[in-house]
Amino acid sequence: MIRTHQTAPTQFVEANGIRFAYRRFGRPDSVPLVFNQHFTGTMDHWDPAVTDGLATEREVILFNNAGVSSSSGEVPTSFEQMAANAVSFVKALRLPKVDVLGFSIGGFVAQEIALQAPDLVRRLVLVGTGPRSGEGMATLTPEAQEIFGATYDQPDHLWLRVHFTRSEKSQAAGREFLKRFRLRAENRDPEVNEKVAPAQIEAIGKWGAPREKPFEYLKSFRQPTVVVNGGNDVIIDSVNSFILQQHLPNAQLILYPDASHGSQYQYPELFVRHVSMFLSVDERRGV
Amino acid sequence: MIRTHQTAPTQFVEANGIRFAYRRFGRPDSVPLVFNQHFTGTMDHWDPAVTDGLATEREVILFNNAGVSSSSGEVPTSFEQMAANAVSFVKALRLPKVDVLGFSIGGFVAQEIALQAPDLVRRLVLVGTGPRSGEGMATLTPEAQEIFGATYDQPDHLWLRVHFTRSEKSQAAGREFLKRFRLRAENRDPEVNEKVAPAQIEAIGKWGAPREKPFEYLKSFRQPTVVVNGGNDVIIDSVNSFILQQHLPNAQLILYPDASHGSQYQYPELFVRHVSMFLSVDERRGV
Repeated sequence: MIRTHQTAPTQFVEANGIRFAYRRFGRPDSVPLVFNQHFTGTMDHWDPAVTDGLATEREVILFNNAGVSSSSGEVPTSFEQMAANAVSFVKALRLPKVDVLGFSIGGFVAQEIALQAPDLVRRLVLVGTGPRSGEGMATLTPEAQEIFGATYDQPDHLWLRVHFTRSEKSQAAGREFLKRFRLRAENRDPEVNEKVAPAQIEAIGKWGAPREKPFEYLKSFRQPTVVVNGGNDVIIDSVNSFILQQHLPNAQLILYPDASHGSQYQYPELFVRHVSMFLSVDERRGV
Repeated sequence: MIRTHQTAPTQFVEANGIRFAYRRFGRPDSVPLVFNQHFTGTMDHWDPAVTDGLATEREVILFNNAGVSSSSGEVPTSFEQMAANAVSFVKALRLPKVDVLGFSIGGFVAQEIALQAPDLVRRLVLVGTGPRSGEGMATLTPEAQEIFGATYDQPDHLWLRVHFTRSEKSQAAGREFLKRFRLRAENRDPEVNEKVAPAQIEAIGKWGAPREKPFEYLKSFRQPTVVVNGGNDVIIDSVNSFILQQHLPNAQLILYPDASHGSQYQYPELFVRHVSMFLSVDERRGV
């Protein structure tokens, strides 16, 4: 049976004293794409339209970082430490080279992975994210505080507010997304425990804090990168995607219309086509 | 014989008292894409890799606006008037609906066309351009003044400075571009006369001048739009592409790395794929 987002079994690998839960599927004869998840998310918070879509041309690896859901250990309080854990996970799978996708705070982890292990990372996909000390990133945005602080009749409806705009079209796309991310019916991840959010929030505070010449570190990146976001992201302001593109030496930027933090879930087919094109570029030809 | 960028004959149509020169090629059973050219450019300043590339899936129409090269009349001193001329040209061809591409000041014309004739325009492609009163747009940028004011051993080398960055990779792409845009050997357009540049510069001054709530007019656009530029445009600062995306109700933004004003000539195949995808979107499905 072909493994997909729905059917791939959760496997485990031990590294750095942590038992990492992961799932892999797609074409094995390729540079794998390793997914780094958003705030309080598990492997089940990815959209199968995105993961299976990208898996038609490459291998996709989902995992829970240390302390998250089915992985053991504690969530560290810095993205540097989360990245160190992610690097040990990738090395434990004996992968010499990977592409790295990070969404939201997963994009912070992805950047730190590229800094810590530049030779391990071929290309970067940074989605709904921003640089260290980005605009409005010193704390959660007022919208994020309101959205994550509210209660919802159905807990999944939180994501309609986080990932989508208030427009009718965006909300309709959101409801389709919620159906898709519940399609995997068996062997789902447990929800994260109560220690995850506070540790991740502490890490966010350090990452977003103002500092001198905050964007200088981006100059050292050598990986071709694509930066993707909605043009109306209220969780991490879209201007931060522009800042990433402007300071990374080799980054393409794509912003989608009438879309907030989870633009890749609003336009999953378009996102898959854009990212697949980017990851398949022949570097000599540029296409 | 199949008509291409190289072989399409220059034709003429009369409208608004002007004899417009134009060329058309590609698939006739489609919404045509009408190209609006940059400062002092003629039909021969387009890149066949871009025009023929886009023509594989749609009809492409190049033309010289009033007073430019092989078209009769005078260049007006405002983009509103240039757009009025462009609209009469399109109507003279009896086209009920067109897609409109504008590059640089051609992007100003394209915006004014959409404002004046919203029902005529299906979708917009805005390349290397900006909004009214954009950042650094009140006058030519210092770089633009230096680049357009300098003399070149070979006049074509002006475009290596206008369209490409100083990096080795970008300049190499620029030299390939210059070869391509000289491929049409017969029936080329005459260079523009000495009255074109001053009139266009006067129009640029009016367009770029500061005004109250400069970006409000963008809210009225209903056309799906893709905004494309290099991330390092020294002629019209790349931030203006971000501003267009942020204020247009339905715009996608794509910025390319290590690219200046003519990013579509640095990455012609990628640009053609991105724009073809955008123009082929099924609105109901979003892909």
